[in-house]
Order: sequence, then structure tokens, then C-alpha cells
Amino acid sequence: MTRRVHASPVFSIPVRVYYEDTDAGGVVYYANYFRFMERARTEWLRGLGFEQDELARDPGVLFAVRTAKLEFLKPARFNDLLEATVEIRGRGRASLTFGQRVQRGDEVLCEGEVRVACLEAKSFAPCPIPPTILSRLDAGAQT
Amino acid sequence: MTRRVHASPVFSIPVRVYYEDTDAGGVVYYANYFRFMERARTEWLRGLGFEQDELARDPGVLFAVRTAKLEFLKPARFNDLLEATVEIRGRGRASLTFGQRVQRGDEVLCEGEVRVACLEAKSFAPCPIPPTILSRLDAGAQT
Amino acid sequence: MTRRVHASPVFSIPVRVYYEDTDAGGVVYYANYFRFMERARTEWLRGLGFEQDELARDPGVLFAVRTAKLEFLKPARFNDLLEATVEIRGRGRASLTFGQRVQRGDEVLCEGEVRVACLEAKSFAPCPIPPTILSRLDAGAQT
Amino acid sequence: MTRRVHASPVFSIPVRVYYEDTDAGGVVYYANYFRFMERARTEWLRGLGFEQDELARDPGVLFAVRTAKLEFLKPARFNDLLEATVEIRGRGRASLTFGQRVQRGDEVLCEGEVRVACLEAKSFAPCPIPPTILSRLDAGAQT
Repeated sequence: MTRRVHASPVFSIPVRVYYEDTDAGGVVYYANYFRFMERARTEWLRGLGFEQDELARDPGVLFAVRTAKLEFLKPARFNDLLEATVEIRGRGRASLTFGQRVQRGDEVLCEGEVRVACLEAKSFAPCPIPPTILSRLDAGAQT
Repeated sequence: MTRRVHASPVFSIPVRVYYEDTDAGGVVYYANYFRFMERARTEWLRGLGFEQDELARDPGVLFAVRTAKLEFLKPARFNDLLEATVEIRGRGRASLTFGQRVQRGDEVLCEGEVRVACLEAKSFAPCPIPPTILSRLDAGAQT
Repeated sequence: MTRRVHASPVFSIPVRVYYEDTDAGGVVYYANYFRFMERARTEWLRGLGFEQDELARDPGVLFAVRTAKLEFLKPARFNDLLEATVEIRGRGRASLTFGQRVQRGDEVLCEGEVRVACLEAKSFAPCPIPPTILSRLDAGAQT
Repeated sequence: MTRRVHASPVFSIPVRVYYEDTDAGGVVYYANYFRFMERARTEWLRGLGFEQDELARDPGVLFAVRTAKLEFLKPARFNDLLEATVEIRGRGRASLTFGQRVQRGDEVLCEGEVRVACLEAKSFAPCPIPPTILSRLDAGAQT
């Protein structure tokens, strides 16, 4: 009953499961899928040419998770080599919606949707996504 | 624009925000709300008279999160004294659905719905919730 | 071969072990004793009347760990109710040295020595411990 | 006052600092250096041809940290690309002592010594390091 992953052009990073990620049930602690997913979003953004520490200084924005829906399908175990994926599902003026998965080979272990809002780094107030980022997203979508 | 919490009979525990819970944004790292919520579910279960390490031995069950929907409304900060709440929203033969919130006084910072499945501790196969737990839930609901 | 704890006047807090604290070995992940010990130092400081978020604003200092020596004697397990202790072992102009333990009843599970430096919150440069804190330490020592 | 790293043959892995690793001070949370160091030890062992999940089944051993001495020299920050190193400093019948560092380029941020004991996976009782591992260590030392 493994959900097959369609061969879509998604961004992904490898994630090794270390002791720090597991719990006494012998599996990855459920909150840690959120960590793996954030690492994937960070590397995806880096792949587009953006470093979050620089974005926070200029143009002074950061991204914060607003909503998340996760489905935990199968457990990941200590020492597994996983893949964390990210793909854009939606784009608003001030937010991005990502589809994300954590998988082991073809098996999807956890999948979900994460919406992040663009915030002013100083005030945490919502703000439009900077044009430099939007244009890079458009360019990325065409590749 | 603070969402008022209705005076419903929910279970809650205090949660102090330590450095370990925060990130470089100066706020609680988003995955850590999952920790606070699990602490609340654990203490709620303990309040019903069940210790999870004993349940894993006899009758040999554990609870694992299957789905979670979270909304992050406002940031919690270092040193905040929060409250993590839990209340039952639904009951299946082999799963429980909880409504949960993390709040600071009257302000709801994060809220969501978490569905946990009852699993055989050895095989991780889904199994019915043991009658001893169900009857305690019924008793609890009447209090 | 349990090390008995001498009945000395140390400060301590209760620490419940949740799933988040454990690893696939079924025991508390070794790095997490550092968390328990920091919670104890934070509550000890709060007990003296100091909130770290206020100290960072006025007089503008924070405490950062400089050295730590830990001995891991016995494993703590899921659901254990532990105690994390803290007592002052030494005092410099700009640093404090603590003896700390994590124990389960009389059994010491982890013990060590942690030296923290007083830093200017803005520059992270070492600075003398503020007199308000020193005088409270002296008062505390006499109680 | 950066401590220069001598050009010794040590094993190292890259470690990227994500939000999950930092705290509200804007730097890597002190306990997380323990995580980085364990990742390095795990990859070093993997480099010698040993997977810890397999070792736990056959010959039925695991390694647990017994003592650790750490010195925190400079803070690592969000988004830094670090290196975590490991080298053997000592070898007993049933334990190994490692020198470990976390560095950013030439700057050593954290360094320390970690002693791990070899334990029977089932009983957690100390046991001799299996000959297959010892001989691989000897082979590794000659490379």
C-alpha cells in the first residue's frame, strides 16, 4: 500500500536519520518531520539564490509558517536515508504554499502542505513578497 | 484581534518557554508547538490514570499521530509562560481526535487538530482502543 | 552502585521525560541533559528574582555556557520523573560555576559542572556580573 | 584570537545551521553541538564500514556517551556552514575517546573530548569492543 510518487519536477534534499531525530518508540519523533521539511524549504530557497540571513537584512523579510497539514503514513527509523521534497502549490501576494513529502525511496512516510507568510523581519508584520524573489520564482518555474 | 477562548472544560498544562524552545527569530520554533501539544496529551492521559510506558507493556498499545492541522497565529517568545490545552473532538474505534491550543493568557498562539491512532506496541499495526481506556474516557466525559 | 546524594541545600526542579526527550535507544538522548540543566539554572535565577528576558534589556546582560563537563552514569527512560539540580560552586568577576545533577529519586543519572560567562547582550563581549545579581547571590547564600 | 587548527588527519562532515539549531540569542543552542558531534561520530563509523542499526543486531552492541568535556569558544550563527570533526584520542577494551571540534573555516567554535562506552544492546551492560571493529580501527589508523 505504498503511495507511488509521480515523477514530477520537485526539489529534494537527502536527510539522514540520526539518534537525535528518533524517540523511544524507535522511530522519528513526529515533530521532527517539520525540521526536515524546513531544511528542504531552506535549501530550495538557497538553490534559487537566496540566503535567509541576507534576506532578513536586505530587503528585511523573513518567512514564517502560518498553517500546516501533515499526514503521517509510515514511520522512519534510525539510520534511514530519507529524502525531503518541496514544490510550490500556490502563490499569494504575501504567502507561498508548498507541497512537501518525506520519503524513503518510493515510500512516502509523511506528506503535507505548508503555507508560509512573508513578514517584515523587524516587526513580524505581513508584507508582500519582494519582487526579486517573485521573479526568480517565475524563472524557476520555467526551467 | 485576539481570539477569545470560550470557557469550555478543557484540560491544560503550563508550559514555560526556555531557550531550547526558541530559534534565531527570537520566537518559539514552529515544530516545538508539537512538543507542547504532546506534553498536554500525555498529561491528560495520565490524569485519566494511564501511564504510556505501562500501556505499552499491558495491554501492549501506544498512540501515534496520524494527521495534524496547525494554525500559527502569533509568536510565543522566550520566557513566556504558556498553556497547552487538549480536548477530545472525536472518537473512532481505533483513533482519537483532539482539539489543541497553545495560548498565553487569553491569546491563542497556535491551534489545531491532531488525530492519533491506537497501535499494537510491537507491530505498530492499528488496533482498537482498549476497553479500559474507552470506559475511562466515558467516565471523564461525564465529570 | 547508586551514588547517594548528600542532603545539601541545592535548588532543584522536577523534569518529566516525554517522548521528545528520548531516542531510539529507549533512553533520554544525551544532549537533552543539557536542556534539563539549563531549565534548572533558569528557574534558580528566577527564584532569585531575575527574569532573563528582563536582564537582557536592563542591565543588558545574558549568560552563556563556556565550559561543561558531564558524566553520564545511568540512563533515564521515557516517562521517568526526574529532578534537575543546581548549586553554585564558584564565582568569578564575570562568570559563575555550577554543580548540576539529574537524578531519579536517589539515583544520580548525570552529573557535571557548567561554567557560564556573563556577556553584554548586544555585543556578546564578556562583562562583570551586575552588582544587583551579586548581592542577591550573597543574600541567597545566607538563607 | 582564533585557534588555528593543525593540519592533522581528522574525519569531518559539513553541518549547515538551520533555524532548528538556533535559539533566541541568535546563535546555535549549546546542547546542539552535541548533536553535531554525534553526527560526525556516526559518519566516521559509517566510513569505517559500520552501520549502527546493524551493529545493534549483530554483534548486538551500541555505543553510549559516558563523559564529555566541552569548551564553547565562539558562537555559530543561523545559516553558517560548519564542519564537525572527530579523531580517536584513546582506546580502551570497552571504550573509545574522541577529540571533536565544531569549526567555521579555521575558527574553532566548540571543542571537546567525548568518551563512549561499548554496551550490549539488550542489557546496556558494558562489553568489550567487538574484534571486527577493533581491526578496522587499526586498519584505519594506518591509512
